Amino acid sequence: MSIRSVFIKNLGIGGGNPVRVESMLKTSLDDLEGCLSEVRNLAAAGCELIRVAFPEASKAKALEKLAFQAEIPLMADIHFNPDLALLSLKAGVPAIRINPGNMGSPVRLAEILSLAADRGAVVRIGANGGSLSGPQLAETGGDRALALVRAVETQLDYLLRNHFDNIILSAKSTSIPETVRANSLLAERYPYPLHIGITEAGPDLRGIVKNAAGIGILLNQGIGDTIRVSLTAPSVKEVETGFSILNALEIRRKGFDLISCPTCGRRRIDVQALVQSLLPSLSGLPDGFSVAVMGCEVNGPREAAHADFGISGSPNGFILFSHGKPIATAGADNLEEVLTSVLKALCPSQNGRS
Amino acid sequence: MSIRSVFIKNLGIGGGNPVRVESMLKTSLDDLEGCLSEVRNLAAAGCELIRVAFPEASKAKALEKLAFQAEIPLMADIHFNPDLALLSLKAGVPAIRINPGNMGSPVRLAEILSLAADRGAVVRIGANGGSLSGPQLAETGGDRALALVRAVETQLDYLLRNHFDNIILSAKSTSIPETVRANSLLAERYPYPLHIGITEAGPDLRGIVKNAAGIGILLNQGIGDTIRVSLTAPSVKEVETGFSILNALEIRRKGFDLISCPTCGRRRIDVQALVQSLLPSLSGLPDGFSVAVMGCEVNGPREAAHADFGISGSPNGFILFSHGKPIATAGADNLEEVLTSVLKALCPSQNGRS
Repeated sequence: MSIRSVFIKNLGIGGGNPVRVESMLKTSLDDLEGCLSEVRNLAAAGCELIRVAFPEASKAKALEKLAFQAEIPLMADIHFNPDLALLSLKAGVPAIRINPGNMGSPVRLAEILSLAADRGAVVRIGANGGSLSGPQLAETGGDRALALVRAVETQLDYLLRNHFDNIILSAKSTSIPETVRANSLLAERYPYPLHIGITEAGPDLRGIVKNAAGIGILLNQGIGDTIRVSLTAPSVKEVETGFSILNALEIRRKGFDLISCPTCGRRRIDVQALVQSLLPSLSGLPDGFSVAVMGCEVNGPREAAHADFGISGSPNGFILFSHGKPIATAGADNLEEVLTSVLKALCPSQNGRS
Repeated sequence: MSIRSVFIKNLGIGGGNPVRVESMLKTSLDDLEGCLSEVRNLAAAGCELIRVAFPEASKAKALEKLAFQAEIPLMADIHFNPDLALLSLKAGVPAIRINPGNMGSPVRLAEILSLAADRGAVVRIGANGGSLSGPQLAETGGDRALALVRAVETQLDYLLRNHFDNIILSAKSTSIPETVRANSLLAERYPYPLHIGITEAGPDLRGIVKNAAGIGILLNQGIGDTIRVSLTAPSVKEVETGFSILNALEIRRKGFDLISCPTCGRRRIDVQALVQSLLPSLSGLPDGFSVAVMGCEVNGPREAAHADFGISGSPNGFILFSHGKPIATAGADNLEEVLTSVLKALCPSQNGRS
């Protein structure tokens, strides 16, 4: 995690703060109601920061309303146009993402940074693998990770020359090895918070795998202060995947933790079906509460001895256990009933929910 | 990757061999036809080694038939019963997974290892987090990763005392940090191939994330010679996820590589729908051929300049490009037609497919 921290409104990023989960609006500012609805869904999923594309001055009014009404902070995503950077800061957006090298002129850039400083706004800068130019790549002999780092450093120079360092850095590409190496270099060299992610990871299984592996490798090395899962899927799924990654690495807990066996020839119950049928009853469990669903009574309670609550198949139905000790049995007919009373006993805070 | 390699039939594991993708039958040996069908599906998905639970001597005939008919090698999974280990080797299974500490007696274990040596069979040994005993944990002061390593070392001692080292080691748990640390220690200390995975990772999104992050972290450190994704889902999905992890880390290519942008307020087309509609046309593309599907013509061709083939939205329909250069345009009405001819031109090997 980074040495320095920044604050976007009240949201601390970097330093000792939890790793943040962010996303980006898929709705255009032309549809303000749609944007607000997407923001609400993202906030409900736990999202803490939302980037929004701001491509035209005509959308400034919508951006201002959105920034005012959104329950979590926004970051305006600006390309090539210094006026848009100024407009978004004036609209009350507490963070912007720019490329300092394409903000018109050093004078315009200074103007933006001065306004950002006045407003206490955070500026994210960074490079994407896809934006590297021929000359940039030639300079590093085709080493793409190093070219990414150089591109970030060029942008950083612009800001530091203006004495502006309320910043987040990023270096992203579609390649995991490239992204990992670039961020390792940045983390070694600079104290600033890092936004991490894999760009254009794609849809479905491959997208989830690419994000989880890439972001997971970096976080496991202690690198990354705010993560953006990039999926060709609804943005809420990006946030769910982000928290799944943090849960999996035991970095940050959100929701209960589910362990379930893959089943084998020894299984006595349909674990997949049981898991699906249990999920509604489990949804209110506290963060970090661990639930194990195991196929057979042979391995079940023992292999899941660390689970706060577990259930496994048995010759006569189900065995419910907690920390490896059987606490109840049930048949298919009374499973839901037994489950409810057991979870209430184990986890009294859940009472208010049902 | 390990220093030593082993061979299960013709399948090389460890040393300079590609990282292997394995799975485990979810069908019981009571249903031989079902097992054969699951094996065929797994083989078609690229699976290279299949573990099968062998819990009772009465299923030995089925195991023998399965081993004879299966197009990829099997590994019999044995618990507690030395007779079953011997029976599976006699049935022609080229690999077994045992815990040498619970094979009855040193004499019975010697008998098993002698038969395995005669047959050239590989023996996988290893420990699971869930199987650690109170005394084992007490010995390491509750350090679970170290207790896992000690448990593997105890098993390894049994084998080496019998001069048997045609082996694969494993140390798995439901915890990624625990599994990563245990395997790092094993990889440092021993030259034997490592089977890696996260146990009982669960279903759906969280299962995929946990496997991708855990296995991804280890592979990124050069650790792991054969992987088993553990999902509460059909076994073919385990194999698909396994290859997705290897693809994502650029360790091994299977199938084409899809890059698609997450879309933002700038998008001109419904990327998610376009990706889904393109998938059938893309399925026959060669391993490693990269395809980019991008929302807008602003970022599309440039950010995906490294893609072998790309498509992005434009004000008038679609732009098709290759290595950053536009090569065709299309409207919604003739997209499929243009796509087919472009892919044929870029990738002549695809011709025979349609």
